[in-house]
Amino acid sequence: VCFAPSMINHYGISGKIVVVIDIFRASSAICTAISYGVKEIIPVKEIHEAKKFKEQGYITAAERDGAIVEGFDFGNSPHAFMDENLKGKTIVLTTSNCTRAIHDAKDAEQVLIGAFTNISAICDYLAQRTEDIILLCAGWKNKYNLEDSLFAGAVALRLLDQYELDCDSSIASMELYKLAKDNMLDFLKNSSHRQRLAHLGIEKDIDYCLQADSGNKIPIFNGYSISAMETTGDHSLTKKSVSAL
Amino acid sequence: VCFAPSMINHYGISGKIVVVIDIFRASSAICTAISYGVKEIIPVKEIHEAKKFKEQGYITAAERDGAIVEGFDFGNSPHAFMDENLKGKTIVLTTSNCTRAIHDAKDAEQVLIGAFTNISAICDYLAQRTEDIILLCAGWKNKYNLEDSLFAGAVALRLLDQYELDCDSSIASMELYKLAKDNMLDFLKNSSHRQRLAHLGIEKDIDYCLQADSGNKIPIFNGYSISAMETTGDHSLTKKSVSAL
Repeated sequence: VCFAPSMINHYGISGKIVVVIDIFRASSAICTAISYGVKEIIPVKEIHEAKKFKEQGYITAAERDGAIVEGFDFGNSPHAFMDENLKGKTIVLTTSNCTRAIHDAKDAEQVLIGAFTNISAICDYLAQRTEDIILLCAGWKNKYNLEDSLFAGAVALRLLDQYELDCDSSIASMELYKLAKDNMLDFLKNSSHRQRLAHLGIEKDIDYCLQADSGNKIPIFNGYSISAMETTGDHSLTKKSVSAL
Repeated sequence: VCFAPSMINHYGISGKIVVVIDIFRASSAICTAISYGVKEIIPVKEIHEAKKFKEQGYITAAERDGAIVEGFDFGNSPHAFMDENLKGKTIVLTTSNCTRAIHDAKDAEQVLIGAFTNISAICDYLAQRTEDIILLCAGWKNKYNLEDSLFAGAVALRLLDQYELDCDSSIASMELYKLAKDNMLDFLKNSSHRQRLAHLGIEKDIDYCLQADSGNKIPIFNGYSISAMETTGDHSLTKKSVSAL
């Protein structure tokens, strides 16, 4: 588990699978969009890049400090992506932390996007792989945040039979998840990000982002855009690790 | 709480008090040396710097990967510094993580060295200050480690009445410390650093580093060397926060 993108160079991503995590709310939104049938999401780091795509006619989403950036169609609320009109479409997305973390991980063997909304799909896939895995918390402005490490702990717990732990961050994340899992909302009540988002009136999003398995797609980044992994052959999904939670 | 030196730039150290933490074993060794009467410790980042001091006749200590570097008088075992012959002496020290973290923090308002061995002295001092505080975990090669965050959690818990929390890392550290405090040795049994150190036969050091308050000095770094803070005037120590542990 890497607690923030600022530490990623010290974990060595070459040849590994990196799962990018930004529970409140970007990775949850990406998983939701892909599960609801969005064809692809192009993550960009900067607002000016997203503006260029918008000028070319793309549907664009931009979030900074939790709010929709003026002039854009969406921010990073997962509910905005539960829209029949977005099926088969391409969306350009920039967010405070997640889209940057995705690009930070681009030299990995695979870059997946993880959230509680697709935790079983992603864990079932990872349980069948042989590569080392880095669970990369997008955090908040390159600092640690609690909800991302809770998800990392939930994934690490599910994969304990298949993987060895490489860093104490996995132990810490699992211990925190075990403390939190029966009431994550309550556990997170003093977390910085919940307080930061409180004035935005997005309690509905918070609830949604902590619910497991509303979707079953695995979003994968190809270096340019994110789409649903095609799960055929040895990628086929089983349910063998679900009971480990 | 900053979980590793690789993240420190994102926490902003200017005007703040930074407490550098490397429980196994360098910060415990520094606190022990200063409490036992060593006059000053000159922390240097690289082995070749320590060698130059040695050539000039300094007592030198050097540790890499947990072991004493060949050609040096000591490594970072606290027990090596419990020596009457070292009273009043200057020691040059380089270690894998801690001495680098100390230099990373040098632009802070104050740089203190913290360990369980002097936790009450340091918390009592911090409880009287008004500056923001960063508890900087030296970690392991710029990655997270468990024992440093346990100490950070113990300090944060003692200071809860005097300070507000700025980052979820404080919440995580406190929750982990609360889980661990009744048996830290057992909690740390799977930690990477304990396993890394196991072959070195230093269980005696491990036990010692987890015991509170064997010393009562506050080591402070002046940009060149570490010595005992002079505790007069508004720096005078009281015991008011001890009971918070």
